[in-house]
Amino acid sequence: MDIWRQLVEQRVPTATAALQRYCQQPSIAAQNVGIQETVQLVTEMVEQAGGRAQVLDDFGGNPVVYAEFAAGLNGNPDRTLLFYNHYDVQPPEPLDEWTYPPFGAEIHDGKVYARGASDNKGDLTVRLQALSILQENGGLPCNVKFLIEGEEEIGSPSLHACLAKHADLFRADACIWEFGSKDPQGRPQMVAGIKGMCYLQLWCHGADVDLHSSNGAVIDNAAWRLVQALASMKSVDNRILVDGFYDDVAPLTPELIQLAEAHPFDAEQVRQQLGLRRPLICGDENPNLHLWYAPTMTICGMESGYTGEGSKTVLPRRAQAKVDCRLVPNQDPEDILAKVQRHLEKHGFTDVQVSLVNGERAYRSDMRHPFVQMVVDTAREAYGADPVLAPTSAGTGPMYPFGEFLGQDLPIVSTGCGWWNSRAHAPDESIRLEDFEQAMLHMVLLLRRFGES
Amino acid sequence: MDIWRQLVEQRVPTATAALQRYCQQPSIAAQNVGIQETVQLVTEMVEQAGGRAQVLDDFGGNPVVYAEFAAGLNGNPDRTLLFYNHYDVQPPEPLDEWTYPPFGAEIHDGKVYARGASDNKGDLTVRLQALSILQENGGLPCNVKFLIEGEEEIGSPSLHACLAKHADLFRADACIWEFGSKDPQGRPQMVAGIKGMCYLQLWCHGADVDLHSSNGAVIDNAAWRLVQALASMKSVDNRILVDGFYDDVAPLTPELIQLAEAHPFDAEQVRQQLGLRRPLICGDENPNLHLWYAPTMTICGMESGYTGEGSKTVLPRRAQAKVDCRLVPNQDPEDILAKVQRHLEKHGFTDVQVSLVNGERAYRSDMRHPFVQMVVDTAREAYGADPVLAPTSAGTGPMYPFGEFLGQDLPIVSTGCGWWNSRAHAPDESIRLEDFEQAMLHMVLLLRRFGES
Repeated sequence: MDIWRQLVEQRVPTATAALQRYCQQPSIAAQNVGIQETVQLVTEMVEQAGGRAQVLDDFGGNPVVYAEFAAGLNGNPDRTLLFYNHYDVQPPEPLDEWTYPPFGAEIHDGKVYARGASDNKGDLTVRLQALSILQENGGLPCNVKFLIEGEEEIGSPSLHACLAKHADLFRADACIWEFGSKDPQGRPQMVAGIKGMCYLQLWCHGADVDLHSSNGAVIDNAAWRLVQALASMKSVDNRILVDGFYDDVAPLTPELIQLAEAHPFDAEQVRQQLGLRRPLICGDENPNLHLWYAPTMTICGMESGYTGEGSKTVLPRRAQAKVDCRLVPNQDPEDILAKVQRHLEKHGFTDVQVSLVNGERAYRSDMRHPFVQMVVDTAREAYGADPVLAPTSAGTGPMYPFGEFLGQDLPIVSTGCGWWNSRAHAPDESIRLEDFEQAMLHMVLLLRRFGES
Repeated sequence: MDIWRQLVEQRVPTATAALQRYCQQPSIAAQNVGIQETVQLVTEMVEQAGGRAQVLDDFGGNPVVYAEFAAGLNGNPDRTLLFYNHYDVQPPEPLDEWTYPPFGAEIHDGKVYARGASDNKGDLTVRLQALSILQENGGLPCNVKFLIEGEEEIGSPSLHACLAKHADLFRADACIWEFGSKDPQGRPQMVAGIKGMCYLQLWCHGADVDLHSSNGAVIDNAAWRLVQALASMKSVDNRILVDGFYDDVAPLTPELIQLAEAHPFDAEQVRQQLGLRRPLICGDENPNLHLWYAPTMTICGMESGYTGEGSKTVLPRRAQAKVDCRLVPNQDPEDILAKVQRHLEKHGFTDVQVSLVNGERAYRSDMRHPFVQMVVDTAREAYGADPVLAPTSAGTGPMYPFGEFLGQDLPIVSTGCGWWNSRAHAPDESIRLEDFEQAMLHMVLLLRRFGES
């Protein structure tokens, strides 16, 4: 292993430069910024790593880059590993809260700061650079494929269509998912499943125009109506009150509970690190029980009327909120939407409209599959620390259609180069170069082991 | 009267040009835009009407323009009428909802469109032009004073100090307040009192940074907390739930109820004109009972997290709301603030901070004072329609300190050149030139009658 560790170390300057160039290219799906330029850049990155890239754009939505790399002469042509990544990033707003420019990819204190550094440009760079190292040192130990999409941050609305049309291209024996990060104790965290998503847009309309707020004595207020509607959907102690919301949630088995409780979670440390004003909402229970197994309902944004400096005495004509529900296996986003609609109607909020912005079902791999253990074992070697493998991420991604089109028994494990304070989706997103290097080594070791298996 | 009607008619082109020039000068107190330029312009307008202007700026806050005009040789030097106006306007946002530029003062279909046209630049122009007409035709029938302030739209925070310091300047026998408008039936609406105001800023802070929304499983959401806090303050059927909020509200007397019910209010017409999605919140009761006598609590604005296009899965670190309460006589804004603070604490919302942006107590004139009837009578002559005089406006203004410093028995009546769809505080604010002309005639007739009384 030491020779590979040395080769990876030598690669770091080249790999870092490639990462910076990639992060300096904005690629914001929600705002339709930089998509074509990024597709071109990703294609070049694949070709520089010795792969063949193919831009798939015949299914609607942003293009998907398919990449393939053949096993070398000494490699195993019967084994194929699929990587899933995305080239799009979250919007960088609020811009004034960034210490460094979000598309500057500046390096400070051993960290690369950029929107997308952690989610998910660091990981694609790690993987392509690992392939380059292997290509230059004896060839690839197995076949490798990539699915690199451009709509993950808006809920992957076209990925289903892409996989339905091109399933044959992507067939593989196992899959490495996009992300992962180290916890505060330095342990790489990995997941073998993912939560689903039901992202809702709510609007309330009152009058045709904004009115003088003195009219509040007789005219309903769109902001109040929306506040009351939202408040009716979740209790102060965080129980979701929408009828039937929990119907499809399978009861927790002793095995799942044990798995969650076996994993460490220092709630007090998290509170201090994030500056939380209140205790975690799980009470005395292990937070993993909630992060892994509980569906959520979060207000991601809301807006109405005047919110600038000073006062404006206006009765706003409309109000909006964006709400995301993280789902667990068996919950269906369309069904959740219908239940929210029924809830609003039942409680008299017929002036509040709700629509589905994007939806995704949850997925969980079989934790007993040998590939799962292989990812853990090679991580232990590369990182020199015990990995923490969870059955599911608290976050979301389009894992479900991979199972649907490539086989429900496809083992999928997610691992990556982030750290516990990478601030994905928030200002000052970053990765640490030490993690970047270890993640590269992990991929080298995993590809070699996978070729031998 | 016909000669005065004719003189007013001849004055319209000059008066309209003066109005346009005044409206083209932005003067946004909340954003500190154009204040000094506007003070200069108002001073010139006073001098052009033959008055003496004095800029008062020794009490903090934006300057107040004091203006005085002496009775002519044939006038009554023992009678003094005070006018109250303000030169500041509401912010013009949202800009993209204006059909014509908010500071363009363009004329379309007999209307002048501008932020401030109705509230309150039209009325100052009307009054100064009426004085010019009288000056040029025999001199003023009485002494006239003006208090023209620059912070009305942010709650007149410095007016109390100005009146405390300069009460002697402003002494008068009666006062005409800033505004008034015609109802859909063409009747000029006037008020002899005003509601108070308690404008609150609420903030909820969760974490130090925005977080990935998957953390919603264990970490509290500032937006949810604020929504729950707000929802705890007002019921779905619009009852304010803050303990003691209604304590100081005097019970309605049969006389007050009769006054309200005697006034027409076509609820269905209002609904249709404003495009309301829901019925008025007063049920089958006369809306005047609520507009005149009921305190309110209105969300003027709220904001949290991401509210742009598409989706962003973020757990916002903070949320804010702006809430205005219109108060009735005896309610004290500081006391209401304290009650809201106690309410939040009692209900566990210690992570929600509330502060008073501005406060004002309510005022009501004695409806039996002869001046009140004089304003009504001259309006009937000028407009050729029966005026509608209410004991109080549903809106707010700093009338209370006028009573406090100039005498609690000072009769104050508000009348002006707006119309029922003037859209004060909203996009496409306008006045109609026909109302502008009639309002000028009303002021000419009132000043003449007042000098004779």
